[in-house]
Formats: sequence, structure tokens, C-alpha cells
Amino acid sequence: MGSVSFRKLAVFGVGLIGGSFALALKQAGMVERVVGVGRGRANIDRALELGVIDEAAEQAAEAIDAADLVLVAVPVRQMDAVFAGIAPHLRPDAAITDGGSTKRDVITAAAALGEKFGAFVPAHPIAGGELSGVEAASAELYRGRTVVITPLPQTDARARTVVDVAWRACGAKVVEMTPQRHDEVLGAVSHLPHALAFAMMHMIAQRRDTAELLSFAGAGFRDFTRIASSSPEMWRDICLANRDVLAHELRAYGAHLDAFIQLLQNHDGAALERAFMAARAARNDWLAERKVSAGEEAG
Amino acid sequence: MGSVSFRKLAVFGVGLIGGSFALALKQAGMVERVVGVGRGRANIDRALELGVIDEAAEQAAEAIDAADLVLVAVPVRQMDAVFAGIAPHLRPDAAITDGGSTKRDVITAAAALGEKFGAFVPAHPIAGGELSGVEAASAELYRGRTVVITPLPQTDARARTVVDVAWRACGAKVVEMTPQRHDEVLGAVSHLPHALAFAMMHMIAQRRDTAELLSFAGAGFRDFTRIASSSPEMWRDICLANRDVLAHELRAYGAHLDAFIQLLQNHDGAALERAFMAARAARNDWLAERKVSAGEEAG
Repeated sequence: MGSVSFRKLAVFGVGLIGGSFALALKQAGMVERVVGVGRGRANIDRALELGVIDEAAEQAAEAIDAADLVLVAVPVRQMDAVFAGIAPHLRPDAAITDGGSTKRDVITAAAALGEKFGAFVPAHPIAGGELSGVEAASAELYRGRTVVITPLPQTDARARTVVDVAWRACGAKVVEMTPQRHDEVLGAVSHLPHALAFAMMHMIAQRRDTAELLSFAGAGFRDFTRIASSSPEMWRDICLANRDVLAHELRAYGAHLDAFIQLLQNHDGAALERAFMAARAARNDWLAERKVSAGEEAG
Repeated sequence: MGSVSFRKLAVFGVGLIGGSFALALKQAGMVERVVGVGRGRANIDRALELGVIDEAAEQAAEAIDAADLVLVAVPVRQMDAVFAGIAPHLRPDAAITDGGSTKRDVITAAAALGEKFGAFVPAHPIAGGELSGVEAASAELYRGRTVVITPLPQTDARARTVVDVAWRACGAKVVEMTPQRHDEVLGAVSHLPHALAFAMMHMIAQRRDTAELLSFAGAGFRDFTRIASSSPEMWRDICLANRDVLAHELRAYGAHLDAFIQLLQNHDGAALERAFMAARAARNDWLAERKVSAGEEAG
């Protein structure tokens, strides 16, 4: 694994995800040179200033020339154009990965790679949060975090290994899944809570007494709704891309709330307490496990 | 206001809420002596060790003797017994307040005060979170926070002023409301999100693949579900006490989710984005306002 390193990393979309990937690989001494493309001139200039990238390219051909690793970190709806631009210029030994939060739609977009499709190893780093932009990029963003890769039968074994090594060099734990399973799992533990937090804030925002209500909202409300400060554009895309799974989860959750209302109407304190205890126990066990994993990762 | 101070504060239930009230009033130089009652011998001994209370009492009569301020910070279902124990021994010039998260049920319990009911000024400090116990008590817990008081027509004007001064001396901002309005507002911005967070965790805990799902949950999920680590007993009581309001809010939220599912089914990205933008704007405006208020409070 230590023998893998990159002469040139090309990053399409130099924001939080792309910038952090570049910084982490630089810090790991895994990459000689980083070229950045897109997201507007001001952003690219800032990325150069911050040392996130070493050079800027206007054209895919220029960026891809001599690149042996490519990260596509643009919004998913722009990915097919980026893949189509990359395909004709890609070196035979180059590997491509991405940072998209959904995987089935990214894979659909990657069909634009044509015969180079095998070089693409879809990836989702579970990191980020409501921050965005190259200013927020950090070499530490992926440390101790999980990156899901969803290779397909057509994926080159070598590309798979290279991408695996690159994400590990960022400090991440790499886990492999099918794209469908990825979208199901993330639909349940990421897309659903984001939709619920947005819905909570939106419901309050639509009330006549929004300001009064919020003046009594405390730290619990602040944390519960933190993810409702995430990018509306990005979450519109994620929700649409994974709409079948998300709608299914929303319906399951709605049924759960109906059962909860029933307990309230029955004054069933014992059942409420059992449910709350099970919820708390599951969360606390998870947090304890998470702490252990992070410790192992750091050690 | 500076002329009000207390010879003896009696705290029933020396946990986070009661302990922090005692520490804050001590720090403000507002109280000469604090006596604590209940929550088990080990806890009371710890409260003595930590200097949260100066003496322990076994009986209400002993605790109340010479007390000019009383805080009832036991679980709501124990309040009527505490109020009944206090009533016969209360000094004519003493004021009583509480720290309960719901107000209509506390007022019902306070009927046990009988002719001393006028001495009681119901209060809800919007502070706390998922920590509990005297170990977590802090003189700073209420600083910059809102305390809602819900006096009734029968409430003595003097008791109202005394309780107002005491909570302000803890660093809190005091706001007055009717008990009904308090329960409606807190139902929307506190009880509802708690129920939703518990429901999210409970739903995941009931899945066959709980461990796998949680292994892919990130920081967003952690914050969204933080309040599901709150006390199951306390939240059972709050949910039951405010069940009419909470059931109404849960139904409204369920209808909101149904509308959301409809947008997904219609692939209506524009409407999704508008809703997310409105949600984010409302949250960010609130956070900015909150920061300004905290700044004014500190200044």
C-alpha cells in the first residue's frame, strides 16, 4: 500500500469535499501536484492562495493531462458533463472517484465515461456537515470517518485498490457496499433526518407566531435542527436522487408517529417510557461504540 | 431589586435544576443558607460535598422552617406530595417556584398548597439538556437563558416579584405567559422535537439491521438525536402532561411530511428547494438573533 502515490491529482469542484481530499493527500505525502477545476474563478484563486491546489485548469483536457487520480466533487447534476469531458483525455492507468452523497444516480451519470467506466470507483465520504466551500476544507476532515465505496462488476480491480488506498491515506475507514444498499442505509440514517429537520424548521417558519415560538427554542432545538442549515441545493438533489428510499422511510416514520400519538391518547406512560428507554439505550450504545472506533482509528 | 435577598432557600430535588438554582443564587450573594431535601441520601451527601447545599433535611417541616424561598424541582408526578408537605409549615412571607417543563399539570399539583397557593409562582427555566444530577449543576446554567413564569390571577404580587428577582439573579431573562400558552409554545419547539428524536432512534432500534445502519450514521445524525438521550421518565411525564398539544403538533408535523412525500413523488425539485431555503433562512435568522440576545445578556 505504501508504494502507491500520485504524480498528479485532478479535483473537479474545489469545495469542502474536494479541497479536504487534496489537503489530506498532500499531508500524507501521497501526491506531488494538485490541479483544481471549476467552482468559479474567485473560489479557485482562494484555493490556490490557501495551498489547497497547486494550479488551476480551465479545461478538463488540461486538468486530466498526466493525472493519475481524479476526484469529481461537483454537484451530482453536473457530473455527467464532467465525466463526458474527462473520458477522452483520461490516461489508461488513472483512477476516478467521487464524493457524492447518493450513489445510484452518480453511477448513472458516470455512464458518460463510456469505455473508461471501469476506472471509476464511486465513493461517499461520510463527513462534511453544514459547512461548505474551500475555506472550510481541512486535511483532517476524513480522519476517523467512514468512506463507502460502491464498485461495480465492471470496475477495474486496480482502480478499486488505488481509490481505496487514497481514501485510507486521508485517514478514513473504507467500507464496500452495493450502490443500492448504500442508498438504503444512508436514506435511513442521513437523508431521513435531514428531511425531518428541514420539515421541522419549515413548519415553524410557516406559523404566524414563528418569532415568538423560536424565542423559546433552546439548545435541544438548536441541535435537532442543525442539519436544516445545510445547503438547500445539495439536499434537493440528494432527496430527488434517493426519492424512492426516502419516501419509503418517511412513510415508515409517519407510521411510527401515528403509533406514538396512539400511546398519548391511551395515556400509556409505561409504553412511552419503554420506547424512550429503548431509543436512549440504542443511541448511547452507538455513541460508546463510535468513541471506541474513533479511538482505534486514532491509535 | 437589589434589596431582595434570602435568608434560607429550601430546594426540593437537588439535581441539575435545583442544584444550579442554589449555586447561582449563592454566587449572586442572594442567599445566606441553602437546605436540600430528597433525591436519595447519596445524592444529598454529594450536594453537601460540592457545596451546592449547606444542610440536608429529611422532613418538609424542617426544610421549610424559616425558609423565605422554596424551589420545587422534583419530577412533576411527585409535586403534589411535596406541595402538600410544604403547605402547613410555610412562612407567610415565603415564595415558592418550580422548574417543571410543563405548567398546567404543575399548577394542578399545586392545588395541594390550599390557601397558600398564592405563594406559588410557576416557572420553567429553558435550560438543562440531556445531563442530569447534582454533579452537572452549575451556577452558570441559567445565564442568558429564558425562564418562563406563568403566574395566575390568584398569585400574590409580592411572590411574583420575589421569584422574578430570584431567577434574574441566576442570570436569566424572565418572560411571563399564561400556562396554556407556555404549554403550546414549548409543545411546538421542545416537546415535539424531543418526541421526534426519540421516534427516530426508536425506529432505528427496532430494525433488524440497527448496528449496520448506525455504523454509517454521522455527526448530523448524532446532533439530530442528541435529545433522545434525555431522561425517559422525565419525557414520559412531559409527553403525558402535554399530550393534547403534543398530539396536535405531531399530527401537524405528519401532514407536513405527507406534503413532503408528495413533492418527492412529483419530482418537484423547485418546491423542495424553496422549502429547504425557507427552513434554513428561518434557522439562520433565529441563530443570529439568539447570538445577539446572548451578547446583550452577557454585556
